[in-house]
Amino acid sequence: MSSEKVTLAHVARLAGVSIITVSRVLNNKGRFSEATRARVLQAANQLGYVANTAARSLRGHPTQILGMVIPELVSPYFAELARAAADAASQMGYDLAVFTTSRDPERERERVGALLGGLADGLIIVVPIGSAGFLASLERSRAPVVLVNHFGAPTHLPVVRADSFEGSLAAVRHLLALGHRRIGFITGAAHSSQATERLRAYRECMLAAGLWDERLVRPGDFTQQRGVEAGHELLSLEEPPTAIFAASDLTAFGVIAAAQARGLQVPQDLSVVGFDDIPTAAHSHPSLTTVAHPIQAMGQAMVDLIIKAKAGEQVRDVLVEFPSELIVRESSAPPRIPGEKV
Amino acid sequence: MSSEKVTLAHVARLAGVSIITVSRVLNNKGRFSEATRARVLQAANQLGYVANTAARSLRGHPTQILGMVIPELVSPYFAELARAAADAASQMGYDLAVFTTSRDPERERERVGALLGGLADGLIIVVPIGSAGFLASLERSRAPVVLVNHFGAPTHLPVVRADSFEGSLAAVRHLLALGHRRIGFITGAAHSSQATERLRAYRECMLAAGLWDERLVRPGDFTQQRGVEAGHELLSLEEPPTAIFAASDLTAFGVIAAAQARGLQVPQDLSVVGFDDIPTAAHSHPSLTTVAHPIQAMGQAMVDLIIKAKAGEQVRDVLVEFPSELIVRESSAPPRIPGEKV
Repeated sequence: MSSEKVTLAHVARLAGVSIITVSRVLNNKGRFSEATRARVLQAANQLGYVANTAARSLRGHPTQILGMVIPELVSPYFAELARAAADAASQMGYDLAVFTTSRDPERERERVGALLGGLADGLIIVVPIGSAGFLASLERSRAPVVLVNHFGAPTHLPVVRADSFEGSLAAVRHLLALGHRRIGFITGAAHSSQATERLRAYRECMLAAGLWDERLVRPGDFTQQRGVEAGHELLSLEEPPTAIFAASDLTAFGVIAAAQARGLQVPQDLSVVGFDDIPTAAHSHPSLTTVAHPIQAMGQAMVDLIIKAKAGEQVRDVLVEFPSELIVRESSAPPRIPGEKV
Repeated sequence: MSSEKVTLAHVARLAGVSIITVSRVLNNKGRFSEATRARVLQAANQLGYVANTAARSLRGHPTQILGMVIPELVSPYFAELARAAADAASQMGYDLAVFTTSRDPERERERVGALLGGLADGLIIVVPIGSAGFLASLERSRAPVVLVNHFGAPTHLPVVRADSFEGSLAAVRHLLALGHRRIGFITGAAHSSQATERLRAYRECMLAAGLWDERLVRPGDFTQQRGVEAGHELLSLEEPPTAIFAASDLTAFGVIAAAQARGLQVPQDLSVVGFDDIPTAAHSHPSLTTVAHPIQAMGQAMVDLIIKAKAGEQVRDVLVEFPSELIVRESSAPPRIPGEKV
C-alpha cells in the first residue's frame, strides 16, 4: 500500500501548482482564486489523496481537530450542544470529533487521555464526571481543556456553564403565580449536578411557599419513558398535583403522554413544564413551557476558550456563566377551580 | 512542558509493576487481577498520564479509534446509529470518534481525508454524499471504509444498509387494510436516497390501488416543524386525507401536533404513521405506528466489517442488507365511517 501512497507532490503535479499551494488549499489557509482551489480539490479527489494528519501532528503542525467528550449522543440536549460546538468550530476552521463516555469515569479518563495524547488540539469535556484528582491531573498536563456544565469539585480549568437554579426557580414561581398549589417534580438522573440544581430550586421555592410535600417528588433520569411512569405515579396520588415540573423536556413529554392516556387534557387538567427547550418543544401540541439554555452562545464560548488556550492565552480560572430563561408556551395555565373539575 | 511529560515508566514505578503491564492494562489487553488493574489506573490518574496515541500510531501500533462520519447529530436516527456503533466498538475495544458533515460534500471529503490520514483506524461513512469519483478514490486508497445506507453510485466498498422500500410498502398497505382511501404522504429531505425509497413505495402502492393523487404528497425534510406545516396543508385540503404517512417519526409527531391543534383526535379522526422508531415513538400518546430499522444489528455489522477490513480480510463487494419492520401502535386505526364523522 505504501508504494501507492499519494503525496502532496502528486497532487501538486496533477493540479499544476506548487506543493505549498496544495497544502494551503487543503488546509483552508490563505486565499486563492476559485479556479486554483477547484483544480487542487479536483486533483486531490481524483488521486484519492488523504492528508496524513497524524504525521502532521508529529511534525509539530497542529491538527485541525477539536475533541469533545459528552456523556451520550442520544440526549437531545447533548446533541444540540455538540452541534453548536461543531458549528462554532467549523467557523474557526476546526473539525469537532465527538466521543461518548456513557457516564463511565474510566471511559472518560481513557478518551481524554487518547485525545490529548495527539488526536485533538484541544478538548471540551461536557459534564466531567472524573474525580477531583483527575481534574487536577488535567490541570497539571497544561493541555487546552474546557469543562462544560461543571458544578463539581473546584478547579482552575476554564469552565463554561449555564444556570439551572434560577431558571428552575422561575419555572416553579410561574406555576405558583398561575394559582397552582400542588406542584409535582420529577428529578433528572442521580449523578447529574444540573439535576441537583433543579431539585434544589424546586425544594427551596416550595418550602418558602409552605407547600413542600415530599410525596410530590419522583426520581427520574431525563428520559421520556421515565416521564410516563413517574407521571402515572403522581397522577395516581390521592391528592394528585395540578402541575408537574420535569427536569427535562423528554420527561415532560412523557408526563403529557401519561396525562393524555388517563383522559386528562394539558394544560386544562394538568400544567406541565420541562427543561432544555429541545427543538420539538416548540412544535408539539400543546407546545411546551420550558427553561432554555443559550446553546449557540455556549458552543461559541467553548470553542473561543479552547482556541485561546491553544494559543497560549491565560484561561486559568476563567468561568463563563450563562443564564437560563423561562419560555412560557401552551402547556401551562391556571388550574381548574374545583367546581369546574371534569 | 516536555520536562514534565509523564511516561509509562513513571506510572510503572509508582504502581510497582512492569511497563508492559501498565501498557496492557491501559490498553485493556490481557488479564490482570482487579488489584493490579486498580493500582495501575490509580497511578496513571495520580500522575496525570495521558497516552500518546499519535506517537503510538506513528510507531506502527494501531490507534484504538474508529471514525464515523454522519450528516448531523441532531437527528434522533443518526444519534441512535452512532450510539449503536459506539456500543459495538466499545465491546471490541475501540473508541468511536463521530464527525458531522452538515450534508456538505466538501466537508465530507475533508473529514474523511483527515480521519484516514491517521486519526482513525477505520471509517464508517453514514449516507455518503460524495461523488462516484470520491467513492472510487476511497476504493483505490484501500483504507478500511464501510458505507452505511448507501443507495447511490455502484461501488466495491462494503455497504451496510437497511431497507426503506418494503417497510414503506407495509406501512401504506396497513393503512389501506384499515380502510383508508385518502392517504397523505410527507416526504423526507430531497437529497436523501432513503427518502426517495419511501416515496417510491408510497407512490407504487397508491398507483396499484388506483388511489394516486399528487395533491396528497407534500415535501418534507424529516423535521417536526415541517411536519406541523405539511400536516396543516394536507388537513386544509377540500378533501383532506384520513391518514398520513410521514417519512420520519419527527415529521409524524408534527402531523399529530397539527391535527390536535385543529381539534382532531389521533387516530379517531386521523391515522398517522412514521418511520424510524425513535425512542419517543413508544412513549408518546398516542404511541406511534412506525417502521423500524434494526439499529443495534446495523451498528454491530458496521463495526464487524471495519474490523475485518482492518485485519486485511476481503470485504470487497460485501453488502449487508437489513429488513425494516412495521410496528403497529396506537396512532393508526380504521377511518370513521362518514355517518360517524364529527
